[in-house]
Amino acid sequence: MGKFSNYINDLNNYIDKNLSFNDPNNLYDPVKYILQNGGKRVRPLFTLFISDLFSGKIDNALPAAASIEIFHNFTLVHDDIMDNAIIRRGTNTINNKWNNNTAILSGDVMLILSYNLLRNYKDQTYIQLSKELNNTARLVCEGQQYDIDFSNQQNVQLDEYFKMIELKTAELIACSFKFGGIVSEASETNIQNLYKIGKNMGIAFQLEDDYLDSFGESKDFGKKIGGDILEKKKTLLYILSKENLEGEDKDLFLDTFNSSNLGEDEKIENIKQFYILSGSKKALEDYIKKFYDIAIDLINDLELEEDKKDTFKQYCSSLINRVS
Amino acid sequence: MGKFSNYINDLNNYIDKNLSFNDPNNLYDPVKYILQNGGKRVRPLFTLFISDLFSGKIDNALPAAASIEIFHNFTLVHDDIMDNAIIRRGTNTINNKWNNNTAILSGDVMLILSYNLLRNYKDQTYIQLSKELNNTARLVCEGQQYDIDFSNQQNVQLDEYFKMIELKTAELIACSFKFGGIVSEASETNIQNLYKIGKNMGIAFQLEDDYLDSFGESKDFGKKIGGDILEKKKTLLYILSKENLEGEDKDLFLDTFNSSNLGEDEKIENIKQFYILSGSKKALEDYIKKFYDIAIDLINDLELEEDKKDTFKQYCSSLINRVS
Repeated sequence: MGKFSNYINDLNNYIDKNLSFNDPNNLYDPVKYILQNGGKRVRPLFTLFISDLFSGKIDNALPAAASIEIFHNFTLVHDDIMDNAIIRRGTNTINNKWNNNTAILSGDVMLILSYNLLRNYKDQTYIQLSKELNNTARLVCEGQQYDIDFSNQQNVQLDEYFKMIELKTAELIACSFKFGGIVSEASETNIQNLYKIGKNMGIAFQLEDDYLDSFGESKDFGKKIGGDILEKKKTLLYILSKENLEGEDKDLFLDTFNSSNLGEDEKIENIKQFYILSGSKKALEDYIKKFYDIAIDLINDLELEEDKKDTFKQYCSSLINRVS
Repeated sequence: MGKFSNYINDLNNYIDKNLSFNDPNNLYDPVKYILQNGGKRVRPLFTLFISDLFSGKIDNALPAAASIEIFHNFTLVHDDIMDNAIIRRGTNTINNKWNNNTAILSGDVMLILSYNLLRNYKDQTYIQLSKELNNTARLVCEGQQYDIDFSNQQNVQLDEYFKMIELKTAELIACSFKFGGIVSEASETNIQNLYKIGKNMGIAFQLEDDYLDSFGESKDFGKKIGGDILEKKKTLLYILSKENLEGEDKDLFLDTFNSSNLGEDEKIENIKQFYILSGSKKALEDYIKKFYDIAIDLINDLELEEDKKDTFKQYCSSLINRVS
């Protein structure tokens, strides 16, 4: 098995080398800007890790991994327009540094470039990867639409929320797992299982992100704590609290949540107390553990040497261990 | 050979039947809205016509034709946001009827759906079509960026203009020709020739559109005459006039073109006079004829029965005969 630091170096080199389109530079400069601006590269690393696990190499996985990363960045670029976001990964968003039109068109070409990278594969591998990316891309758009819908929706049910994060986040992570299996020519059974492992890890990962947004440490999380609360996002913590609280407590919670008069820190602290006292924080921890455990169980079902299963489990664990 | 009215009916039925995605409806309603809102369907009809010409049937060409049409509509939806356009084909644009965010996301999913339709093809046919669409899609984005760049650019050269319309318009038309060849399993030589015929027809078609925007009849053209002039678009007529005029004439032309004080009709009439007197109108007519003639010559090179070549030529002629 290779080392993670090597994975990320190889990936970044590959992306740099393959972003060779230059003209018109008003189209491609923003693409290079966002892709060279870092990010954790979580999704492509899944693809590389799994390829390494199943075939002992990552070279053949680089185009697929880069495709996933460029697709992910396409979604960020268009989401940032929709959210009027001005900062991403500590620097200006494309819509802020350039303008909305540039972000629309550069985002479009990123979606196209994510398909373009798959041209490096031949025959059935190309067919499988491109159809998979296509299906995932459609589902991610659906998830983004549900997320937008929620902001205008009075009541968001638990199952609606899970469906949204499945589509918006978990499908792409599942795709990144499956890509690793496809490029390393894993068996069909293994590929199907990798998809399921990725789906459950993806849900756990998104729930953990929700958790850390309220209960993480700013230095670990990489963004200001309480952002979701200030944006009045209807995350699982909100939905659970609204379900669990009753009477005056519920009224006070909702008043606080919807208030625009409280100071930022005060509002965040108050809402976090509701999340704790209503049992929602604990329930969220349990949900994260539940989906993580399903993923780990599914790793046991893989047709794979036991020591490699252990390596796989450790990798998944390292991603979820941010919740303590 | 089938009839054109049958082509369009079959195509519209196929599109209706295959737009079966419903939830979330805020994502898919705008897609259905724009696709059911008509349009001339020029591009998919090329695919169907060529498939019919080469294989005597169109059934197998319907998914490819629908893919082209959905892709084309994706570009319109995103262009309309960038242009702040409020009317398209006589009805509200998506950004106007809904909002920009809806138009961004529904446009994205249309690009994805255009790939999705190609899943109806197997093996090498799928590979050829999806790679061709992918390549075309990237070039169309580049063309759109050059078009945007021109509006902020003092001088646009003739060759820059031709490059822009090649990318923005002609590549997709060339793709629609090539798709017809691929799905009807034409020979590789014929497929390459179809691409070239489409490219030249595409340039002629776009130049004709520029021509009709100034010199057409409103009832035939389907939009108000002089739109490009009022938007100060640097079309070929403008570029040629700027090149051909000298001294005071040139100054007066540019003052008039850039003026915001003249009445709309007066401005259009004055600019049209410059286009005529500078010889630009005539030069544009010659350019249209030149690219049309190249296309017709290339039809002669096809490996195809003579009577079918004639049918093909008549079809191309019917599309260009709007300029008299």
